[in-house]
Amino acid sequence: MIQGIDHIAIAVSDLASAEATYTRLLGCSPYKREHVASQSVRVVYFKVGTIQIELVAGEGASHPLKEFLARRGEGLHHIAFSVKDANTAQQHIRALGFRPIGDSAQAGGNNKKVVFVHPKDTHGALIELCADK
Amino acid sequence: MIQGIDHIAIAVSDLASAEATYTRLLGCSPYKREHVASQSVRVVYFKVGTIQIELVAGEGASHPLKEFLARRGEGLHHIAFSVKDANTAQQHIRALGFRPIGDSAQAGGNNKKVVFVHPKDTHGALIELCADK
Repeated sequence: MIQGIDHIAIAVSDLASAEATYTRLLGCSPYKREHVASQSVRVVYFKVGTIQIELVAGEGASHPLKEFLARRGEGLHHIAFSVKDANTAQQHIRALGFRPIGDSAQAGGNNKKVVFVHPKDTHGALIELCADK
Repeated sequence: MIQGIDHIAIAVSDLASAEATYTRLLGCSPYKREHVASQSVRVVYFKVGTIQIELVAGEGASHPLKEFLARRGEGLHHIAFSVKDANTAQQHIRALGFRPIGDSAQAGGNNKKVVFVHPKDTHGALIELCADK
């Protein structure tokens, strides 16, 4: 099911400051900035080899990083593994005994279809499965 | 300085249970298990493409994951970027304004020399720089 690692996401409060920090650390500029309205987040994308490092900040009063940032502060948020088809992966992961979050794949950043797996099933690490379809 | 991503580490309390979970999730068995006495940790290594997923558990009364696990529970612990030479990278990272943890590179898992960067300088994400020398 899993084909490789697509990206690693870091949840941040101050996106501009984080962009400056990671530009300095990684020695390269982001290749893309995106407003993902469907997820109420803004994302800055860096590429390291074939893997993307994503800095993700929430926007508005209610966004998916709010509880994470309040509880743990800024930091590593999730690993995304690439899969062929997100809805098929959701069924597969459920058959393996993991609980996907939500009933079907959602629209994510970078034109991907995404499924998250409940971190209680994966020793606290939030896992995303993402695909082009 | 940064050549690529070497591994992503997940801090766990129950290494045997985490190994079973990630074997099921990733669809492959670990390629190596290691006791890293110098760091007081045990590590189980999976490979996804060219990147390693490491499950890391502490051992003994005092180990480097103790505070993390007490404060945040199991979960994503650090990203490791590969560099050519760990001591040179430490000097470089300091010159860029980041605070490396410790005065020189240490012996890490998988026969690597490693340097950690203080997460307060990287928006909460613990970053490791690792090299073969």
